Amino acid sequence: MLQIRSNKIVEHTTGFCDIIDITPTLREQIQKEKIRKGLLTIFVSGSTAAVATIEHEPGLIQDLKEFVERLIPSDHRYHHDDRWGDDNGFSHLRAALFGPSVAIPIENGQPCLGTWQQVVLLDFDNRPRTREIIVQLIGESE
Amino acid sequence: MLQIRSNKIVEHTTGFCDIIDITPTLREQIQKEKIRKGLLTIFVSGSTAAVATIEHEPGLIQDLKEFVERLIPSDHRYHHDDRWGDDNGFSHLRAALFGPSVAIPIENGQPCLGTWQQVVLLDFDNRPRTREIIVQLIGESE
Amino acid sequence: MLQIRSNKIVEHTTGFCDIIDITPTLREQIQKEKIRKGLLTIFVSGSTAAVATIEHEPGLIQDLKEFVERLIPSDHRYHHDDRWGDDNGFSHLRAALFGPSVAIPIENGQPCLGTWQQVVLLDFDNRPRTREIIVQLIGESE
Repeated sequence: MLQIRSNKIVEHTTGFCDIIDITPTLREQIQKEKIRKGLLTIFVSGSTAAVATIEHEPGLIQDLKEFVERLIPSDHRYHHDDRWGDDNGFSHLRAALFGPSVAIPIENGQPCLGTWQQVVLLDFDNRPRTREIIVQLIGESE
Repeated sequence: MLQIRSNKIVEHTTGFCDIIDITPTLREQIQKEKIRKGLLTIFVSGSTAAVATIEHEPGLIQDLKEFVERLIPSDHRYHHDDRWGDDNGFSHLRAALFGPSVAIPIENGQPCLGTWQQVVLLDFDNRPRTREIIVQLIGESE
Repeated sequence: MLQIRSNKIVEHTTGFCDIIDITPTLREQIQKEKIRKGLLTIFVSGSTAAVATIEHEPGLIQDLKEFVERLIPSDHRYHHDDRWGDDNGFSHLRAALFGPSVAIPIENGQPCLGTWQQVVLLDFDNRPRTREIIVQLIGESE
């Protein structure tokens, strides 16, 4: 019978496009809940962070940082900044573009990720943050 | 026991990157279906609209409109326009980039959104539209 | 009672932003599993491919290819290339941006897609690939 389980994981980030590999923590959650077959949903609460998949190696992480800086520059003045004065309009736009959630099927107790495909938290805010990520499992236990 | 419930919500948009906050409607659906713990999937039918999360305040909404106009200009001539003559190639590209769905866990009868994080419908088409959004709930009732 | 079913589909691609319509295969899977109402999750394993929705017509497919080439050029030198020498840094960035999964509700045995909205595999790698896509169904059988 299908069951649903949710856990929160907490990550401390440096902000400024900090990119953290959360794959090991996700694998632990699946193992702890003994889900063999199911659906893993990862969702980050907050409007200046996102969740994505990427190969988490230093060269590519640097490429991603440079890409988002070129696409949505942090030194541009945004309307959001004029209204709120917290100067993180660029953080909000980046988060909206990448999105807050990823859904991954689970087979044989493992997420169906490729060998070089990791799940990452992207913190686009302009200061260090403590982030809550919801890890939800829908599936059949052993 | 887990159940699955789907409802359609209808939004009338102005097109041209109209951005509508649908969070209150989503909260009503969760309450109506009495889901305490579950998964909320929001999906928009149609190839020129998208669903995303963002802080829905006027400054940032203006920033998002300017960003998509800069990224995928509406005054550029697209191959799609040459074939179909409806001049909305830019609308299709924007929708493909942002994506049609967002998945959000529900805890204690509420979606796990951050305080400043709203769910929005983005209508990128080049004319007013009536949009159908599927709100699907998988979860345990009270 | 809700059940969960997963199948793998295999696609042979040419790489270089090959865009393949997998909607007919998804409809077959739903029919084969006799799911009337449910949630369809499509996920591609691998860090240089993505899944999205778009109108699959030749003009727009060409527009999408030109857009990603302009956004994340293939002839730029990326840090990933310096480290690994496989020259596909651009493929990884494109895949991270578009994302590996799409979630679509199913009603009356059909995915809730718009008339011109197809589900596509995007292969951004710089060589032909054989891709595994996980098609997961959570739902009620007939």
